[in-house]
Amino acid sequence: MQQSDMILISIDDHSIEPPDMYKRHVPAKWLDQAPKVVRGSEGADLWVFQGQATATPFGMAATVGWPREEWGFHPGSMSEMRPGCFDVHERVRDMNVNGVLASMCFPTMAGFNARTFSEAADKQISYIMLQAYNDWHIDEWCATYPGRFIPLGIVPMWDVDLAVAEVRRIARKGCRAISFLEAPHGQGWPSFLSGYWDPMLKAIVDEDMVLCLHIGGAWDIVQLAPEAPVDHSIVIPSQLTMLTAQDLLFGPTLRRFPKLRVALSEGGIGWIPFYLDRIDRHFQNQTWIDGDFGGKLPSEVFREHFLACFITDPAGLKMRHDIGVDVIAWECDYPHTDTTWPESPEFVWNELQNAGVPDAEIHQITWENSARFFNWDPFSHVPKEQATVGALRAQAADVDVTRMSRAEWRRRNEAAGVGRVEADGLQDVGGAR
Amino acid sequence: MQQSDMILISIDDHSIEPPDMYKRHVPAKWLDQAPKVVRGSEGADLWVFQGQATATPFGMAATVGWPREEWGFHPGSMSEMRPGCFDVHERVRDMNVNGVLASMCFPTMAGFNARTFSEAADKQISYIMLQAYNDWHIDEWCATYPGRFIPLGIVPMWDVDLAVAEVRRIARKGCRAISFLEAPHGQGWPSFLSGYWDPMLKAIVDEDMVLCLHIGGAWDIVQLAPEAPVDHSIVIPSQLTMLTAQDLLFGPTLRRFPKLRVALSEGGIGWIPFYLDRIDRHFQNQTWIDGDFGGKLPSEVFREHFLACFITDPAGLKMRHDIGVDVIAWECDYPHTDTTWPESPEFVWNELQNAGVPDAEIHQITWENSARFFNWDPFSHVPKEQATVGALRAQAADVDVTRMSRAEWRRRNEAAGVGRVEADGLQDVGGAR
Repeated sequence: MQQSDMILISIDDHSIEPPDMYKRHVPAKWLDQAPKVVRGSEGADLWVFQGQATATPFGMAATVGWPREEWGFHPGSMSEMRPGCFDVHERVRDMNVNGVLASMCFPTMAGFNARTFSEAADKQISYIMLQAYNDWHIDEWCATYPGRFIPLGIVPMWDVDLAVAEVRRIARKGCRAISFLEAPHGQGWPSFLSGYWDPMLKAIVDEDMVLCLHIGGAWDIVQLAPEAPVDHSIVIPSQLTMLTAQDLLFGPTLRRFPKLRVALSEGGIGWIPFYLDRIDRHFQNQTWIDGDFGGKLPSEVFREHFLACFITDPAGLKMRHDIGVDVIAWECDYPHTDTTWPESPEFVWNELQNAGVPDAEIHQITWENSARFFNWDPFSHVPKEQATVGALRAQAADVDVTRMSRAEWRRRNEAAGVGRVEADGLQDVGGAR
Repeated sequence: MQQSDMILISIDDHSIEPPDMYKRHVPAKWLDQAPKVVRGSEGADLWVFQGQATATPFGMAATVGWPREEWGFHPGSMSEMRPGCFDVHERVRDMNVNGVLASMCFPTMAGFNARTFSEAADKQISYIMLQAYNDWHIDEWCATYPGRFIPLGIVPMWDVDLAVAEVRRIARKGCRAISFLEAPHGQGWPSFLSGYWDPMLKAIVDEDMVLCLHIGGAWDIVQLAPEAPVDHSIVIPSQLTMLTAQDLLFGPTLRRFPKLRVALSEGGIGWIPFYLDRIDRHFQNQTWIDGDFGGKLPSEVFREHFLACFITDPAGLKMRHDIGVDVIAWECDYPHTDTTWPESPEFVWNELQNAGVPDAEIHQITWENSARFFNWDPFSHVPKEQATVGALRAQAADVDVTRMSRAEWRRRNEAAGVGRVEADGLQDVGGAR
């Protein structure tokens, strides 16, 4: 097996919602209430919804085309981005040049757990826009290139019955997963342990979907030192995934839903052997607690429910047998700073070889586990022999992967009429909330 | 090499302070202000200081002699404990029967970071009692058996100048380390990043001592779900040690004190390869942040400063070369629930053999690294050939290690006059704070 023979499914990427996305998915009578992109006073674009500018820092979320020295948590504009961030045709070309067959894309403006809609005042409008987001994502972004995207929806957290209804509605449209929140209690919602979310979890199980808990969602439950540098916000989130696994494993959730499947999106995998050692020792040592894992070890229950997801994780790959080779899945994280694009095949291949991973296990980790976990057939539209890194890259010889400055992207995109913000949205906004 | 040839230094054990400890170390005029053990309304003993009952749950802190079904976070009494918890002569016998040459003991009633004294209202009295604790620990507990204990002091957190003075005072008496707080900002103190503690850290470095940060100290910085079960409080603390490493590595502390040595007491080691991968990738990827590690990788700086400490850690031992074999040290955790006493040699030997650790590395992990890190000569009083598991156990043939019920311990101890609480301390206490 060669690097070019790999098949890559990435279950963690991100779309930057294009400014015109709501136009085609919001009923006419609500259209003037739809989120709009406006250009702020410093040339930065912001989504505005219900009078509030959303907190999405375009800059850090879409660095894929830029040299590293231009990264940062500053606002950016649509026209400064590599178009693959928001244009699905360009996205597929960027997937091809990186040898990626299929991708699961998380929201940006909407928030991983639809936070933009959940925190807005008028929930009727929020619900309409959330549904429009899902319709755009499923019917437009994913459906334009069948076989290239695994659809991932969001739900209205402010009403669990509506969340159930939305799970069922988008399941009908072929959605395979729900992006939710690692630690709901951190944002003021009931916790997973409370049982409040059980009707939604039941619907997800009924519909054979996956619960995706992306890192960042547990950020609110850790009190950092006031002087903590920006490094903390990048290094720590994947270290908190364990807290989510702990809530689900040692609370009642997994006992109640023996078929619930949970992807620990971008959670990393190297922490898992240590955590599994710890919980098995705990279970066998602290017998006075009467933990109930149905006659199994906690580590066995972990492996029945969780998909362990990584972008780059040398230690975790070495310890893959202590994790479970069939619960590990690769991610690309386009267009965020942690992505390995456009050298993902080289990057993951080297890591797999350094860890001594044999060919059969490479296939498990790079595509088979994800396809099974999301019950998604990767070859329904793309025959297997055309799905490899080598075959996809052969289609993308004309894709330029050069990193360019934000200014250069702006020049090129504006000249091509790409990433334009509509004139009627132009107004100053006070600042991001 | 056989199991019996191992030499064991444990750098994480706990003393349960005996009720009469202050008598011999508090100046006469302050004696009536000293902490006292009183028997509460349900037969449980509590330390009372400045009118408050301390939060120490004797039960969970001293389970070593009990069957597992009697463990729990309930109050206990001195007379229910295995006497090795509080009697240094019995402690050394319990070390011998477990093959442990030397031990570093953390406080119980005083708190790992002297919290009992820091939170009491009258700081003058607190300071006197804190010094009495250190004098008892160093001059009595440790000095009674030279060569068997590595002295570990505490400092008054409410005044950094006093903390400096106490570091210097106890250094003169041969103290090798200071027990402090993993995340000071979690208990309302300035963080490590603030620079507030720098004078104390300078004193610790000047005196060639070690800063010990025991797990549990970061507990206050995580917001758990209100329904979180008791398992969380046992499983999670070692998962938070990373946050402390992150504060020290990515804040200014280690740059300012290139010779500072920090023991991550009971922090476990299996999380470290994942964390080191993460911070090196972060440093090499997020170059816009301009991190400064003096021309080194963050992982290299980690290995220059930290001692990685574990009780049982199969995954960590397998990954020892990704941690650094010379920064790993073993712990016993007597008399807590996580201790492997009285089968520590069997337990750690099996783990070392399963991980394929060669003899030379076994010595590094079980004693050489600790001796070097704490700059403490293990053979100054006990010749090396008498320091092995086999030699120590040969001296302890008469030590009964049978687990017995709390009631049976009470019967035996009361019959022997052991663990008595003084009559003049008998009074009801409203409840632990």
